[in-house]
Amino acid sequence: MAALASEHGATLSRYANETISAGGKRLRPLLVCIASGVPVVQSDPLVHAAVAVELVHAATLVHDDVIDGADLRRGRPTVVATGGRLMALATGDLLFSRAFAELALDSEIEPIRLLAHASGALAEGELMQRADSWDTTVSRERYLERCRLKTGVLFRAACELGAAAGGGDVKGLGRFGERIGVAFQLLDDVLDVTGPPERTGKPRGADLLDGTVTLPLIEARARDLSLAELELRGVRTADQANALCDRIAATGALQIAREHALGVVAEAKAGLPAGISTDQRAALELVAAGVVERYA
Amino acid sequence: MAALASEHGATLSRYANETISAGGKRLRPLLVCIASGVPVVQSDPLVHAAVAVELVHAATLVHDDVIDGADLRRGRPTVVATGGRLMALATGDLLFSRAFAELALDSEIEPIRLLAHASGALAEGELMQRADSWDTTVSRERYLERCRLKTGVLFRAACELGAAAGGGDVKGLGRFGERIGVAFQLLDDVLDVTGPPERTGKPRGADLLDGTVTLPLIEARARDLSLAELELRGVRTADQANALCDRIAATGALQIAREHALGVVAEAKAGLPAGISTDQRAALELVAAGVVERYA
Repeated sequence: MAALASEHGATLSRYANETISAGGKRLRPLLVCIASGVPVVQSDPLVHAAVAVELVHAATLVHDDVIDGADLRRGRPTVVATGGRLMALATGDLLFSRAFAELALDSEIEPIRLLAHASGALAEGELMQRADSWDTTVSRERYLERCRLKTGVLFRAACELGAAAGGGDVKGLGRFGERIGVAFQLLDDVLDVTGPPERTGKPRGADLLDGTVTLPLIEARARDLSLAELELRGVRTADQANALCDRIAATGALQIAREHALGVVAEAKAGLPAGISTDQRAALELVAAGVVERYA
Repeated sequence: MAALASEHGATLSRYANETISAGGKRLRPLLVCIASGVPVVQSDPLVHAAVAVELVHAATLVHDDVIDGADLRRGRPTVVATGGRLMALATGDLLFSRAFAELALDSEIEPIRLLAHASGALAEGELMQRADSWDTTVSRERYLERCRLKTGVLFRAACELGAAAGGGDVKGLGRFGERIGVAFQLLDDVLDVTGPPERTGKPRGADLLDGTVTLPLIEARARDLSLAELELRGVRTADQANALCDRIAATGALQIAREHALGVVAEAKAGLPAGISTDQRAALELVAAGVVERYA
């Protein structure tokens, strides 16, 4: 929590602290550590990098919740629900700043470049998603590019930061990270359609209700002409979203989307740098398997 | 505009570009240049620093407009008015990221530290303002600390970045910047009460309607017992805000607040490092005079 210590005491960074301590899978910091190839994490740059990627991730979640007006995240009230929009907005900004402050504790400039690039891409992914809202004619390519920006690039940065700190193959491990991130996003979007809410922690079809068009709907539209004529803005209630999810599932689109994700994971594993140790390879493959298992 | 060029072409960073090209006083970049003491700005680090502080400032404006639901800024429609909340939120995040990316074009880590510290302070200032909303009993000290965080620290960073790039007295010039920033905020808060709207570009008493308690009200409450009992939430219309502004002005509080600001400017000038050149001193004093003249 030291990364969030405020010069003005506990009060001001309370929301930032609560956001981080609410938990989560810590997948990005885990990738930083594994990509470093260092058996025991004790170097400062590595710890700073792990903290920084999680802070950036947390910042985006806090800001996402402002947009969605979400009440719960990880089973706890969101910052926007507890403190209001301004508090949530400033908390996100604070988390972003702290991420860069964390990396600036070391003397290397390259990690800053990597993180600035990744956090810019995250914002661009959000802008792109917003620009594409309610547009059911969005292409697969554009959807995949959005997955790359929204999720792939921060996974890539996590691996790059780890590899840089550990003296490994920055490009090669970064490529692995990006692919795993894209697969993670793809499977997340499949889960939105399959549900059930008890498992995903959000209503089934939440993306559809938000106007976010993802691969399951894109593939379903190509397979079911009646879906191709669908006006997404007409889907407004949980029941309507549920019914649409059933129609998407009936086309076989979920299987297509899932296979696409598995293909990306396979590519990620096949593309791992040849020079890494057996242990590091095993750990990275374990993360890849974890991403896939989330769906199963 | 190169700082905002997106890897995805013009569309995605359109709002970010529009925000920056809408203009403004460019006071912070100006301070970077003058604090450097370099007669002609041609070093890369200096240009990057000047761009970075303006990007951070622009990011906070875009986010502020989300909170206030503001329609106009610098005479142009705001991002939130044109593109909606998500677009404005992501645009602010993008501007923040680009600021750090800009500094990361150089190899020095110290500028990153300075900017990360300043942008964290900005967020803390926002959190503090939110925490103090509608609280008319807020102390002068707490108000001044908020001015420091919201405005002083980025002015300080501008001077520090300039001084660092030019090999000058980082601490001494930073202190000057912070004081000028605090005075700027103080006078801005006085202008909110004096109006007129044609000059300030916002309704008279906008802060009061927002629940933001500033020095004029704090000083007025100490001078007028009937104001001490005021319930700020009861002030809801432009007419009520106008009437309250008149009551504040009648206590002489505006004069007190203005004198406080002038005192801070005088301190800033008196505290300028002894070693700076006559030209640099003259330029810095010109900025100080400009901050004061804004009020006159």
